[in-house]
Amino acid sequence: MEKSSYFKILFIILSSSCFLIANSITLKPEKPCKRLVLYYHDILFNVTNAANATSANVSNPPNVLSDFNFGMLVVFDDPITVDQNLVSTPVARAQGFYLYNMKTTYNAWFAYTLVFNSSEYNGTLSIMGADIIGEKTRDLSIVGGTGDFFMARGVVTFSTDAVEGLGYFRLKMDIKLYECY
Amino acid sequence: MEKSSYFKILFIILSSSCFLIANSITLKPEKPCKRLVLYYHDILFNVTNAANATSANVSNPPNVLSDFNFGMLVVFDDPITVDQNLVSTPVARAQGFYLYNMKTTYNAWFAYTLVFNSSEYNGTLSIMGADIIGEKTRDLSIVGGTGDFFMARGVVTFSTDAVEGLGYFRLKMDIKLYECY
Amino acid sequence: MEKSSYFKILFIILSSSCFLIANSITLKPEKPCKRLVLYYHDILFNVTNAANATSANVSNPPNVLSDFNFGMLVVFDDPITVDQNLVSTPVARAQGFYLYNMKTTYNAWFAYTLVFNSSEYNGTLSIMGADIIGEKTRDLSIVGGTGDFFMARGVVTFSTDAVEGLGYFRLKMDIKLYECY
Repeated sequence: MEKSSYFKILFIILSSSCFLIANSITLKPEKPCKRLVLYYHDILFNVTNAANATSANVSNPPNVLSDFNFGMLVVFDDPITVDQNLVSTPVARAQGFYLYNMKTTYNAWFAYTLVFNSSEYNGTLSIMGADIIGEKTRDLSIVGGTGDFFMARGVVTFSTDAVEGLGYFRLKMDIKLYECY
Repeated sequence: MEKSSYFKILFIILSSSCFLIANSITLKPEKPCKRLVLYYHDILFNVTNAANATSANVSNPPNVLSDFNFGMLVVFDDPITVDQNLVSTPVARAQGFYLYNMKTTYNAWFAYTLVFNSSEYNGTLSIMGADIIGEKTRDLSIVGGTGDFFMARGVVTFSTDAVEGLGYFRLKMDIKLYECY
Repeated sequence: MEKSSYFKILFIILSSSCFLIANSITLKPEKPCKRLVLYYHDILFNVTNAANATSANVSNPPNVLSDFNFGMLVVFDDPITVDQNLVSTPVARAQGFYLYNMKTTYNAWFAYTLVFNSSEYNGTLSIMGADIIGEKTRDLSIVGGTGDFFMARGVVTFSTDAVEGLGYFRLKMDIKLYECY
């Protein structure tokens, strides 16, 4: 076999393998390129707590339909902290809303943006997904990012960290990014 | 020419082609990596059908503005089936909302999450986009996924499969994923 | 050294470098693959302007909570033009909603879809993010696309271009796509 034939064969093999690799970039749930654990604090407006409230229902849920707030739509500007303490200095705000959408149990759906404006991070992460409150953990999608999180995508795992009646709840948000640029 | 020169040239050519391939990974509309056809059933609450209703208007649409429900915001927890039959065992629930947003015709906008919890799939797909009801088919974006649909993205094509007044409608959702991990 | 050994070594080096390149595809904020500058016009319904209004509040904001419209949720079908002129022929419609979510200043959160139906573009771009009105520019995420924008992702930079009381505002949207197929 001539030398040029060797090169041709080699070229074909390498190009093909390269193409296959490029088309099968693999993301693995256990290998995020960045991870952040943060706490979300929500204080629902109840007419008398305007000074402290961070969220408010703005819809007319049809009460006859459900005992579990079906249709309640809550707009929020919630503080995000690195520990469980409500009064810690927030590292971000969570801006957006959640709604209750099940007739037979408490179940929510979230769409919001984490707005970071701290010494460590500037930028945003936008999040959307179902909050199946009855499950110990539930995954929502991180659908976009800006600033320090430019073009990020990932998964955020919610777990309920505290509930005090209808007035206050705290979520642990385990943020895992799989696309980092 | 020496052997080492041959290798240098070969290395440059292959590296370059490899780089070009990696930067031009191409997704093609006709080649999804996964496809699912599902049906979405919506039964709007009308005060008397609390037992069967799967959705409810929760807003105050300004009726003087439009004859086409402009501003009506409907929260839903809708069954998703693999066939057209409303009473088939659901393979998923669609959780989220749609709103009507045109003054001159029926036109909707959706944001919701498909929550799969069947023998076949566990996980979620989150979807967002315009439902131009007047068109035979319309494409919305699948913006994220979790669980069996970890980090998925894609397009879902809606087509209206049945409408019974304001009380019931059924959409065919042709789900095409182009990022599968 | 035998020729076959040379090839083995070469193969390993090239495959490795190819793999590394494929796994580190880099997106740069200053190098979008497509860029569009468009203007968004919003005329809020005020009971008397039904003919011209393009948006309407549909929620019950708890006024006692804030002087800055906290909880107001505005559904829109807004014209999108290539210049600042409200009466230019729209190249797209923006369909979705924004809500005000801060107690101490005007601050909004958007989720909407740009529906293009012009001689130049057919398709959609779906957008989500915080509109920190007090900042000169703010970045939101483009989380999906269809049609001519099949599977697109990117960032849109908002800047306020005009405000006329509560009745009209115009945003400049600097759309930068980083994933183009």
